[in-house]
Formats: sequence, C-alpha cells, structure tokens
Amino acid sequence: MTRSGRRPGESGTREAVLAAARHGFGTAGFSGTTIRGIARDAGVDPALVHRFFGSKEQLFAAAMELPVDLAAVVPALLAAGPDGLGERVARTFLTAWDATPGQGPMLAMLRSAVSDPAAAASFRDFATRVVLGPLATAASPDRPELRASLAAGQLLGLAVARYVVRLEPLASTPAEALARDAGPLLDHCLRGELGS
Amino acid sequence: MTRSGRRPGESGTREAVLAAARHGFGTAGFSGTTIRGIARDAGVDPALVHRFFGSKEQLFAAAMELPVDLAAVVPALLAAGPDGLGERVARTFLTAWDATPGQGPMLAMLRSAVSDPAAAASFRDFATRVVLGPLATAASPDRPELRASLAAGQLLGLAVARYVVRLEPLASTPAEALARDAGPLLDHCLRGELGS
Repeated sequence: MTRSGRRPGESGTREAVLAAARHGFGTAGFSGTTIRGIARDAGVDPALVHRFFGSKEQLFAAAMELPVDLAAVVPALLAAGPDGLGERVARTFLTAWDATPGQGPMLAMLRSAVSDPAAAASFRDFATRVVLGPLATAASPDRPELRASLAAGQLLGLAVARYVVRLEPLASTPAEALARDAGPLLDHCLRGELGS
Repeated sequence: MTRSGRRPGESGTREAVLAAARHGFGTAGFSGTTIRGIARDAGVDPALVHRFFGSKEQLFAAAMELPVDLAAVVPALLAAGPDGLGERVARTFLTAWDATPGQGPMLAMLRSAVSDPAAAASFRDFATRVVLGPLATAASPDRPELRASLAAGQLLGLAVARYVVRLEPLASTPAEALARDAGPLLDHCLRGELGS
C-alpha cells in the first residue's frame, strides 16, 4: 500500500474518526479507549487512524482541538533541565490557552470535565498519564503522583481563574508575566519540600 | 416594633428571601445585589432581611448554604498572624468542603460558576471582596489584588482537582495533610516574592 494524498471522502473519514474518538474518550476515558475501538466505531481500519492521527495521545489532542502537540511538548519541557521547569510549564500552558481565540474547545473540555463525571474521568486520565505523571516523575522521586496531582490542581486553578471566573488582575496579566508568577508554585509542586 | 420569636409563616418568608437572594446574586453578582432589592423581590421589609440573616455577606453564605461564617472566619485567620497563614487558609477551606457530604451546594456553586457567566461574576465578586482581598491586603502591601487572584486560583484548583476531577492521590489525601502541602503555595501567593 502506498501513502496517498488527500482523496474525496478522506475528510469525511477523518471527521468520523474524530467523532468516534470524542465519544470514546468522553465515555470510557483516555485509558479505557483504544485506537482499535475507535477505528471499529468509525468503520475504518486501525492503520488508517494511525496514519491520519499518529498515536492515541495525538488523536486525543486532535479530538479536543488542543493547539499543541503534547507528545512533543512534554519531552521538550523536560529536556531543558529542572531549572525553571515550572515557569516553562506555566508558559506553555498559558500560551496554548491564549492562542485559541475565546478558548473554545479547551474551555468546552474544562466545562464538561466540571459538569460530567465521564468527561472528568477522561480528562483526569489524560492529564495525569500523558502530561503530569511524566513531568513529576522526572522532577522528583518523592511521591511523584501526589506532585502530579498538585501540579494539575495548579494548572486547573489558573485556567478556571483566568478563563472562566476571570478573576482580575490574573485574567488580564500577560501570559509571560503570569508564567513568572506561577512558575515557582509549579516548581514547589514538582520539586519542593512537601509539608505532609 | 419588638423582636418576635419564630412565628407561623416565618420559614416561608425565610425561604422567599433566600430564593430572591439566590436569584439576585446569580444574575446581578454580589456587588450588584442589595439587601433592599432582595427584600423588594421577596415582598418583605429590608429590616426583616437584616434581622433574619445579618449582613449581605451572611445572607450570601446562607443562600449558598456555605458551612462556615465567612465574616467571622477571615478575621480569625488573620488574627493568628502571618506565620502559617496559608496552611490555616487551606485547612479552613478544605475542612469546610469536606464537612458537607457530597459537597452538594458548594459543588453546585462551583459548577454554575464554570458554566454560567453571571454565576461566575457573582462568585468572583464574593471571593475577591469578602475573602481574598482582605487576606491579601493584610498579608502583603505588594500588589494585593494580584495576590488575591493567585490565591483564589490556588483554592479553585484544589477544589476542582479534589472534588470535581478527583485527581488522585490529591482527592483522597486527608484535609489536614493536604493543607500542609498546599499551605506553602498559598503563602507564596499571599506573601512570597512574585516573579513578575
């Protein structure tokens, strides 16, 4: 089989895969959803899903219209070493949110995570396994899971305060300045001395 | 007019005031709502609202079924001095949430703040003016508004991560231990050196 260019019907197939992915991630969570199952629901071959979207993480990002490639972003954040890790995480997070006008799809994901337990489970799985677990494990050997959930709480709180509740002046502080303020908080979660 | 005890019809009046308060705070926000307006909507005298519920802050807490008297809690948190302030704030916050089985009314308030802009505005006003503004102003003369919004983000993030998304192990960590972990983060928001 040779790789082909975009053909008639391909965009319909992509949409069918994305719809099946949104349904799967939304009901079975990130861990409970497989490329194979999504392909079956969309009526296509799993190899086609891989060819169109890459990994399960990349498919999730596409389904959620995330403006960053998380599979590439997390290793890049870690590669620069532990100094300033929290600030880089905060900057990447805030820049991704700010880059989407109105924060449409990401805000929709956050709203459904808050209102719908299945969406919350999907979000929880994804955030912990793909993003925060690897970050925390790389940052400290001391209770990485607790650190990951504390750091996730930080980022959730920043997103809710900035884009949902719009608390001022946090909401209108430029991402770059806010990343400098929030960086030490994330560093404390990832590498600081925990009180408990 | 003499102060009277509980009479037939009083509980109906209380309910009418609470309903008018929920509607007012939910549509016009905390600042945009007055005891006078709530009394008018409930068809009672403003003096009766004051007598039943006390201040506007206390009426808000009653309408939202908050399990703590915020008007008393904030001065008490500050009276013990700056050392350990973050941990005391975190402990008070988490204990109040944990004290309500299922976190019903507080979770409902959080969910409506995330889904409904008017509820978000009400929550924002209340949290900033009544709780976080006084805390931040007392804790540091350096940009108290930014500190208040960062601290609010902390508490929002803790609530969303613990009670909504239920990120583990944060969700099942006892409130006391989690307050020790989150305390330094709140202290950093309230009194630490900001990066920006």
